[in-house]
Amino acid sequence: MNTRSEYDLLGYLDVPADAWYGIQTQRAANNFAITGVPISHFPELIRALAMVKQAAALTNHDFGLLNATKTEAIVSACEDIAAGQYLDQFIVDVIQGGAGTSTNMNANEVIANVALAKLGHARGEYAQLHPNDDVNRSQSTNDAYPTAACLGIQFAADNFVPALASLKAALEDKGREFAHILKMGRTQLQDAVPMTLGQEFDAFAVNLGEDIDRIREACALLCEVNLGGTAIGTGINTPDGYSAKVVARLAEVSGKPLVPACNLVEATSDMGAFVFFSGILKRLAIKLSKMSNDLRLLSSGPRTGLGEIQLPPMQPGSSIMPGKVNPVIPEAMNQTAYQVIASDLAVTLAAEAGQLQLNAMEPMIIYNLLNSLKMLKEACEMLEHRCIRGIIANEQACAAHVDNSIGIITALVPHIGYSNASRIAHTALMTGSTVKALIIEESLMSESELNRLLSPQSMLAPQKSAS
Amino acid sequence: MNTRSEYDLLGYLDVPADAWYGIQTQRAANNFAITGVPISHFPELIRALAMVKQAAALTNHDFGLLNATKTEAIVSACEDIAAGQYLDQFIVDVIQGGAGTSTNMNANEVIANVALAKLGHARGEYAQLHPNDDVNRSQSTNDAYPTAACLGIQFAADNFVPALASLKAALEDKGREFAHILKMGRTQLQDAVPMTLGQEFDAFAVNLGEDIDRIREACALLCEVNLGGTAIGTGINTPDGYSAKVVARLAEVSGKPLVPACNLVEATSDMGAFVFFSGILKRLAIKLSKMSNDLRLLSSGPRTGLGEIQLPPMQPGSSIMPGKVNPVIPEAMNQTAYQVIASDLAVTLAAEAGQLQLNAMEPMIIYNLLNSLKMLKEACEMLEHRCIRGIIANEQACAAHVDNSIGIITALVPHIGYSNASRIAHTALMTGSTVKALIIEESLMSESELNRLLSPQSMLAPQKSAS
Amino acid sequence: MNTRSEYDLLGYLDVPADAWYGIQTQRAANNFAITGVPISHFPELIRALAMVKQAAALTNHDFGLLNATKTEAIVSACEDIAAGQYLDQFIVDVIQGGAGTSTNMNANEVIANVALAKLGHARGEYAQLHPNDDVNRSQSTNDAYPTAACLGIQFAADNFVPALASLKAALEDKGREFAHILKMGRTQLQDAVPMTLGQEFDAFAVNLGEDIDRIREACALLCEVNLGGTAIGTGINTPDGYSAKVVARLAEVSGKPLVPACNLVEATSDMGAFVFFSGILKRLAIKLSKMSNDLRLLSSGPRTGLGEIQLPPMQPGSSIMPGKVNPVIPEAMNQTAYQVIASDLAVTLAAEAGQLQLNAMEPMIIYNLLNSLKMLKEACEMLEHRCIRGIIANEQACAAHVDNSIGIITALVPHIGYSNASRIAHTALMTGSTVKALIIEESLMSESELNRLLSPQSMLAPQKSAS
Amino acid sequence: MNTRSEYDLLGYLDVPADAWYGIQTQRAANNFAITGVPISHFPELIRALAMVKQAAALTNHDFGLLNATKTEAIVSACEDIAAGQYLDQFIVDVIQGGAGTSTNMNANEVIANVALAKLGHARGEYAQLHPNDDVNRSQSTNDAYPTAACLGIQFAADNFVPALASLKAALEDKGREFAHILKMGRTQLQDAVPMTLGQEFDAFAVNLGEDIDRIREACALLCEVNLGGTAIGTGINTPDGYSAKVVARLAEVSGKPLVPACNLVEATSDMGAFVFFSGILKRLAIKLSKMSNDLRLLSSGPRTGLGEIQLPPMQPGSSIMPGKVNPVIPEAMNQTAYQVIASDLAVTLAAEAGQLQLNAMEPMIIYNLLNSLKMLKEACEMLEHRCIRGIIANEQACAAHVDNSIGIITALVPHIGYSNASRIAHTALMTGSTVKALIIEESLMSESELNRLLSPQSMLAPQKSAS
Repeated sequence: MNTRSEYDLLGYLDVPADAWYGIQTQRAANNFAITGVPISHFPELIRALAMVKQAAALTNHDFGLLNATKTEAIVSACEDIAAGQYLDQFIVDVIQGGAGTSTNMNANEVIANVALAKLGHARGEYAQLHPNDDVNRSQSTNDAYPTAACLGIQFAADNFVPALASLKAALEDKGREFAHILKMGRTQLQDAVPMTLGQEFDAFAVNLGEDIDRIREACALLCEVNLGGTAIGTGINTPDGYSAKVVARLAEVSGKPLVPACNLVEATSDMGAFVFFSGILKRLAIKLSKMSNDLRLLSSGPRTGLGEIQLPPMQPGSSIMPGKVNPVIPEAMNQTAYQVIASDLAVTLAAEAGQLQLNAMEPMIIYNLLNSLKMLKEACEMLEHRCIRGIIANEQACAAHVDNSIGIITALVPHIGYSNASRIAHTALMTGSTVKALIIEESLMSESELNRLLSPQSMLAPQKSAS
Repeated sequence: MNTRSEYDLLGYLDVPADAWYGIQTQRAANNFAITGVPISHFPELIRALAMVKQAAALTNHDFGLLNATKTEAIVSACEDIAAGQYLDQFIVDVIQGGAGTSTNMNANEVIANVALAKLGHARGEYAQLHPNDDVNRSQSTNDAYPTAACLGIQFAADNFVPALASLKAALEDKGREFAHILKMGRTQLQDAVPMTLGQEFDAFAVNLGEDIDRIREACALLCEVNLGGTAIGTGINTPDGYSAKVVARLAEVSGKPLVPACNLVEATSDMGAFVFFSGILKRLAIKLSKMSNDLRLLSSGPRTGLGEIQLPPMQPGSSIMPGKVNPVIPEAMNQTAYQVIASDLAVTLAAEAGQLQLNAMEPMIIYNLLNSLKMLKEACEMLEHRCIRGIIANEQACAAHVDNSIGIITALVPHIGYSNASRIAHTALMTGSTVKALIIEESLMSESELNRLLSPQSMLAPQKSAS
Repeated sequence: MNTRSEYDLLGYLDVPADAWYGIQTQRAANNFAITGVPISHFPELIRALAMVKQAAALTNHDFGLLNATKTEAIVSACEDIAAGQYLDQFIVDVIQGGAGTSTNMNANEVIANVALAKLGHARGEYAQLHPNDDVNRSQSTNDAYPTAACLGIQFAADNFVPALASLKAALEDKGREFAHILKMGRTQLQDAVPMTLGQEFDAFAVNLGEDIDRIREACALLCEVNLGGTAIGTGINTPDGYSAKVVARLAEVSGKPLVPACNLVEATSDMGAFVFFSGILKRLAIKLSKMSNDLRLLSSGPRTGLGEIQLPPMQPGSSIMPGKVNPVIPEAMNQTAYQVIASDLAVTLAAEAGQLQLNAMEPMIIYNLLNSLKMLKEACEMLEHRCIRGIIANEQACAAHVDNSIGIITALVPHIGYSNASRIAHTALMTGSTVKALIIEESLMSESELNRLLSPQSMLAPQKSAS
Repeated sequence: MNTRSEYDLLGYLDVPADAWYGIQTQRAANNFAITGVPISHFPELIRALAMVKQAAALTNHDFGLLNATKTEAIVSACEDIAAGQYLDQFIVDVIQGGAGTSTNMNANEVIANVALAKLGHARGEYAQLHPNDDVNRSQSTNDAYPTAACLGIQFAADNFVPALASLKAALEDKGREFAHILKMGRTQLQDAVPMTLGQEFDAFAVNLGEDIDRIREACALLCEVNLGGTAIGTGINTPDGYSAKVVARLAEVSGKPLVPACNLVEATSDMGAFVFFSGILKRLAIKLSKMSNDLRLLSSGPRTGLGEIQLPPMQPGSSIMPGKVNPVIPEAMNQTAYQVIASDLAVTLAAEAGQLQLNAMEPMIIYNLLNSLKMLKEACEMLEHRCIRGIIANEQACAAHVDNSIGIITALVPHIGYSNASRIAHTALMTGSTVKALIIEESLMSESELNRLLSPQSMLAPQKSAS
């Protein structure tokens, strides 16, 4: 392999001749090989890094700290990278020591070398344009990196939210499709009172819809960035007024309404917005898991379960049991949810480990958030297209459950009293008889009155007025 | 012990003659003895339950479902309970099966018996006024209980927030007191660049202050309640329009801006608002733990640690080492924080375990939230009064750290260049010399220029413009 | 309140005149009020502390460091306390800073005052017999406290294991009782192949039984103690050979096979044995929760669920739905399990927070372990006596599930081939017909052959040979 | 792309013509794309799967259920795969629904097609040799897959343990190298009593060494396998005596002392051994994180921290602060540890989600265990070679800390009394004087006596006798 030699504080090291990254990236790649997942796995983060560097270059130019030639070259390099070029040059592992220095230097070095090429220089000729002195000018890893993370996570959320909204829409469609199907509601897995299957799917839709709002609120917290704070938030080595200007620039470049944090020292070590974001993803994961559990319960059977719905068969279910089809898609969603919940713990542990003016564990916090967003996006698309949209109702089973149920007696309590109702419920349970038959047998109510009270209209009416 | 006999679906059971609770409470007390902590441990929850029952009675009266005599007696009983009377009658364990039915029935029974007394009847004469038919009228555990929880948690938050705000104020006071003390900032536990000790405490204050806002937002989510949804959210056995009216009544009674959830079926099984609340408490716990870790680091010593601050001594630190004083208060805060973080996992597990139209694990969700709020309140008061307010700065140590530091060279980079700076930093490290001495020795800068650049004003200036 | 004044490193403080504890306990009680749970909540810990102090006194006497009079008085006081006297004098909160110093001093002070009384002195006359110089002689909190914890947790396990074993026995009894009841097994909530209800309960019993072994192994790890290591494990201020002797004494006094840790420095900061223990309790909690979930699934209904078993009704299930009975006991077990799993996270967080030669978070680790053991004991007794022993089988439902099932076709695959079997399974599912009817209709097999192959003996035979 | 068409229960589907896998693998690949990590990421699992299939084929042959030609072809194919061939054909995602059916079928199909090729048939000619009827003969996913997991995890542990042992050895080497360096021990970050730096590293070594034993115990639990239980543990469709024989065969093939589980029904749904294993990895992660925290504390500085050791510089530490070098390697270890702790939660959640006769979440349990083992291996190698082996001691700093310390007074307590000691400690702290100077000034002890008592030999002596 052809190499070129580069130099830093620790001495000389060879990097591949055709690498756009440089010596510090190479050192990091040598040091960290724990997950095998490079930061390029998350293009949104790379795009965000490029935008931060672009905004910094433009602002440095405004302050007279970077000449026009260098500025143009850097900006052009950043635009190429933000557009997706050079992605494979972002090679450092997602888990890395150094609080993101390696990721930041990976960006600085790739940008410097691409900019050098644009100016007609060879890679590594940093005397002409330097990763630190020029690309990283007026920045520290400690402000540039978390700012890029705040932005990259928002980009990833932008990718995810449509998938979630589409899943919600699919559930609403099923809510409409099943609006006429009366079924028994269940509390604590025991027969309760009637509802419609449509209401059940509507509830899923409403439930997920709330989290779209929560994700937006979480993104809003990520709009407060610490760019301009440099090493510890005191803004050392930045010109007066730099922070406000560079953040405004970044807002322009990124299209996100970024503002400088009100206290840059606090913002530099605070992981609160990441913890909040992670908590929201966990909340969503809990909901998706609960819904998947319900789908699996409702489709249990085909003969010895609840059997109220049928999930579309996606693959043979057993290598030994002929004809078996399993709810594999909700099962995969459950597992995704568990992984996301676990990632929230990883974020928690890392956030708590911050010390004094910085949190050295930021790289894994950012990794876990980006990874959760990516997995959730895939899983929501899977759940919508490979499960929800193909669900069919077993109307007969739903109806039989209601007819056969004892729980419908609840609707008669205001008419026959709690005590009569309890007695009849008990008799029905012991004898296997139906509530209807017993009421008529005892002449507690006329059949027509009974039919009226136990009609869907009657049993579900209050809900109409409540909504 | 004198007893009276009561009857329910499962038969007869004795309860203490002087108990204000009844048979179902007694059964629950017999069934559940896992924690030994009764629900009366959280008076806010009992108060909230009483208010829910009061609002329901008034609304039932409005709808002609409860006569004036009963209504007045129930309302009066609820007011007594809300005011703190009969607290010891709320005996069921915080961990209980039945999705809160035992807690709800404990309230129904105590209210019924107190109301009966007010009407001149003996305890247990439920034919006159019935726990279910009257007190629980138009309600189910499944709406009354979570609504009370939403309210009770807000009351507990009302107790906690002032403690948090006061802790924040104490940190701000220290921020002002220490505003003039220059010290070294540290990133990754390595010497970074100068800051003031005041900035460090200001950052703590800002950091905690944000979570006061988050708790308020979390309370806002708890203002959407499912009262009126009854068993599964379809509002079975409630009169038309009941939900809107009873929630409005409860808003009046409680002083909280409650509104009915937009979808009562969804709201009945959804634990989202509790999960959100728990996530916010976890976020705060992470911050409190990180701050406590910092306080312990900064006060480490007295001779072999960082020694920049001194915590007030609260108790002898060792049974064997004379003169040892330990940072016991931050240590207790750390442990509280870990307990709160763990409680968030308990909430997570319970929330994910919901099935179909209800979450049977609500009691432990509510317990964990109330318990975390209670512990955090105690711990924040402890931290403020037994630690923060008594902290004194070791100004000499802070100053010596800055003078002796290599990190101050960062401020000279724009003047002597990164390369010179790196070389001098390395020499200082190897020889034990100071940066100032080496710069003067090499005549890279005049002493006066050096003193100007390394003055606090100069090194901390940008922060001013940023804030 | 009458008080007496005591003195320590920080000055004078009043303690109640009739308190057996002293000044340092009082300071700790003032400092820490976070949970409201005093250490006396766990009598096993107090008993263990007394034994440690007794063993130390005896060993100090052997080494000539404590005279006979004092030794006798201390030993006698320790014996009283170990027998359960003075429990209410152990008042410090379970969550406390100081790595257990407050708990250790609470013990030292109560023992000293009780011993003083035995010697005819007034409380607080420490010149005659001193909490530190005499009771704590040759000890530090850092060895005495974790050693007591190791012992106390074993005592708590001794209380718990019989409850678990009894629960296991109840499950075995049900296994025998239900051995003849054929039912459908289910995988992924889909009908699989036949088994007996007895096998299902046997599996629960075996599953729990394994954890009795695991708890014993976990106790074995707790038999390695660091007593004699004093402050940091170097054994400072102990006579030569002290550690081995005092541990041998403690083994005698406690009846547990304790040995000194092989490296006392390591043992002083290591939380590994506690983490291990907690992990085992978590494993058991997972199993108990899974079993509870299964019990709730199998008893779901009564009309629209699986309905294969019936749990004994323990309390009315609903304030609104007549006749409803819920699986409240397994639900309470689920919640206990979640609490235990959450406690394992608390232990994890605290264990990771150890620094250098000690872990300051030990008190909450010990609290969580003791609390989990206590809750599990209560919950296992509840589950056995209020649920398992009263379970009855719905034999008819079990039989109908098998007859009606498609899954039984698996047993015919070796005889009619996978392809025929798949086709018939599919036809049965589509038409609602039974497998038996279709096979006979197609003359694929004679009815007698079919009956033979689908008999319990045939379908369950291999299991016999495997066991 | 050239394709061939294959058929299953759900109909026809194209697979790439040159794929060794078949239709069910293809369906799974289409269904699941959540992580993007294929099962081939863990070659140990693939190897284990091949061995299970090999053992099954041989046992089926012994029972006359598979002819010699097919047996030979399957065995040969399995040997090739176990040797690492065809790894890229194992394409299904690590997170998948179906309880491992997709992984099992991926193995069945690749083996079938490779065996077909060996017999001169084209891929997909399953009439000649069938993935289900031949390769999967006498098996179900529900026994073959977890058995392979038990084996694969042991193989992964075999890879990991040497890395851990080597890390331990490196720590022991440092323990020896630093055995002569006296330093202050610290408890609760406060100066305690003297120890050697060697003892500190020895303690790390002992601490990790214990977990090698724990991992071996965890592997022992994985030696109980459920192979032969087929669908739910009843052994349906296996010949009499099959389970014992196939497990014995697998023990031979794998070299691991496998035995059949004593209750196959229990073993089929039980995740206990995986939970146990995960708990051990979590315990180790806690220890590695605590040690990394200590290394970062001890090397904090260079001027304003503890500065007792120096970690080898691995990369420049800052883009803005010249000369800064950060403890990047321990930081990466911390993050790895947090990831492993989080994975334990993922395992916990998945294990608790098992239902009735199976746990559908097994794939993610297995993924998390294999991933943790892989990350820990990389991280331990990193920590050893890029950090521990290059650590140097700052002997001067260590010595100065001892000389300057107040904590050494503990050693004098038996000679000057606790009260004198406390007073002098307090004076030293207030005046900045040293303990030695004050003792001599007060003539409490002769200088020579003082030097003797404060010599390393004296202060560290008891440890010798204890070990």
